[in-house]
Amino acid sequence: MRYFVTGCAGFVGSTLADRLLGDGHEVVGFDNFSTGRDAFIAGALQHPKFTLHRADLLDAPAVRAATAGCDAIFHLAANADVRFGADHPLRDFEQNVGVTMNVLEAARLNGIAAVAFASTGSIYGEATVIPTPEDAPLPVQTSLYGASKIAAEGFIEAYAEAFGLRAFIFRFVSLLGERYTHGHVLDFCRQLREHPHELHVLGNGEQRKSYLYVGDCIDAMLLVMQRCTERVCIYNLGSDGYCQVNDSVAWICERLGVQPRVTHGGGDRGWIGDNPFIFLETAKIRALGWTPTLTIRAAVERTVDFIVKEQL
Amino acid sequence: MRYFVTGCAGFVGSTLADRLLGDGHEVVGFDNFSTGRDAFIAGALQHPKFTLHRADLLDAPAVRAATAGCDAIFHLAANADVRFGADHPLRDFEQNVGVTMNVLEAARLNGIAAVAFASTGSIYGEATVIPTPEDAPLPVQTSLYGASKIAAEGFIEAYAEAFGLRAFIFRFVSLLGERYTHGHVLDFCRQLREHPHELHVLGNGEQRKSYLYVGDCIDAMLLVMQRCTERVCIYNLGSDGYCQVNDSVAWICERLGVQPRVTHGGGDRGWIGDNPFIFLETAKIRALGWTPTLTIRAAVERTVDFIVKEQL
Repeated sequence: MRYFVTGCAGFVGSTLADRLLGDGHEVVGFDNFSTGRDAFIAGALQHPKFTLHRADLLDAPAVRAATAGCDAIFHLAANADVRFGADHPLRDFEQNVGVTMNVLEAARLNGIAAVAFASTGSIYGEATVIPTPEDAPLPVQTSLYGASKIAAEGFIEAYAEAFGLRAFIFRFVSLLGERYTHGHVLDFCRQLREHPHELHVLGNGEQRKSYLYVGDCIDAMLLVMQRCTERVCIYNLGSDGYCQVNDSVAWICERLGVQPRVTHGGGDRGWIGDNPFIFLETAKIRALGWTPTLTIRAAVERTVDFIVKEQL
Repeated sequence: MRYFVTGCAGFVGSTLADRLLGDGHEVVGFDNFSTGRDAFIAGALQHPKFTLHRADLLDAPAVRAATAGCDAIFHLAANADVRFGADHPLRDFEQNVGVTMNVLEAARLNGIAAVAFASTGSIYGEATVIPTPEDAPLPVQTSLYGASKIAAEGFIEAYAEAFGLRAFIFRFVSLLGERYTHGHVLDFCRQLREHPHELHVLGNGEQRKSYLYVGDCIDAMLLVMQRCTERVCIYNLGSDGYCQVNDSVAWICERLGVQPRVTHGGGDRGWIGDNPFIFLETAKIRALGWTPTLTIRAAVERTVDFIVKEQL
């Protein structure tokens, strides 16, 4: 198989590219290196079955040219900056929806059979049902990021219906693991490197979130693409549990061997649109036989080790 | 109040503009006349409290300038051509989502307190729950039109959360009445004017659809904006029932005094993405005391009378 991977130099994209190459597939990678890193694809670039396009997905003709001859697309590239969405109101629209339209048009025009999409549990807004299943009641969007992802999902589904391609939509919780470059574990590690005796936590620290190890996420995506036979396959990907931000703080501090004084910003959420409780129902993916190999705590610890090792 | 109305020369927009002017409000209308008609706003143009901007909503600076000083926005303009969506894959995205972003940015930058949006029952896809309530299970989109409308809804909700404006989202069934310019009643009337003895119906004619009279729709929107106090108010607007396409055919033929031979295209739907059964739960709007004044049959008949009178 020849896979097109957007965001191939990012956290998830580079990990997936390595995995697909290891499984014997060809990978055509596409990244604008806005957050992607050369170091993450250094290995892939040595591989004869890897091709890199250093270009922007906003450039529709470039996307169309690069996808020619591919069998399936993993569309992972996105503006994943949930927290600062409101500072740049059009960014999520342009980079997450506009770009998805370019990917879909490329798939349609090149007759690509399947599009897999990295969506998010954020599309459930402040869910009324927790753990939140794939067919939860229609949510009210609370972040521009979530809005952009549910918008992209809808267009992918409509393309599947209108043009006969197959759609695989994966709603992730936050991912952890090697090559993590963005999120609370990094924020806390950086604070503690600078001031080992102080840590400031947004909100009251009681926000409850679920996390998943990136390797487990990739296992789940590949399994669904093997097993699900529907035209549109929608799966939550998450752990069978959640932790409080304060739990995560304790694990990080223990791993780093520090005992800081922890201060809290207050309130039940970290920022506008922050969701104080994210926990996805994962019965659907588990029914395919998948189960995460790492607990949330183990995933946090691996992430800390990576951050320390790479001096991020 | 000073209302900004997009699509002010269209079917719903012009009817709403007349209503708001009649209620003593100022109306700033905006239309690119792609489907809007000068005749529909001939009356409004005589009114001292009506201002018309003949411009395109894709022109963000024009939208921003025109909305300055308005208290609330009715965003009704859209590409409403559900049937031919797949012939122009990017049109719904650009005209229904891109344009909505321009409207939202104008609202944000001009500090406009409220945005009311004409959404659609099409966002429910092929609903698993019928009649379909506002909090139906998360649907799979089956049309580019539905995808564009749920995308716009999500961004409106996220703007409400991030920037403090209020959102009124109305999910309409198909509307009927005076100034109707587009849809099956017009298609059938035109066919019968040309060939009174023959009528071709797409699908098997057993598609079940719900319709609402435009005046009842406007009553409902204004009532919700008076009564609903939540930040984001979402209401289905439809009739307490549905009809088969074949029922509608019979009412139209009786009204026109013709008895054509009816042929069917076959299959359970008229086109790709057509939904064979649309019927919205309207308990939420009815709980505010609203009830439609016209039955579906009476609304079809008024529409036929309008088409005949105007020789559309």
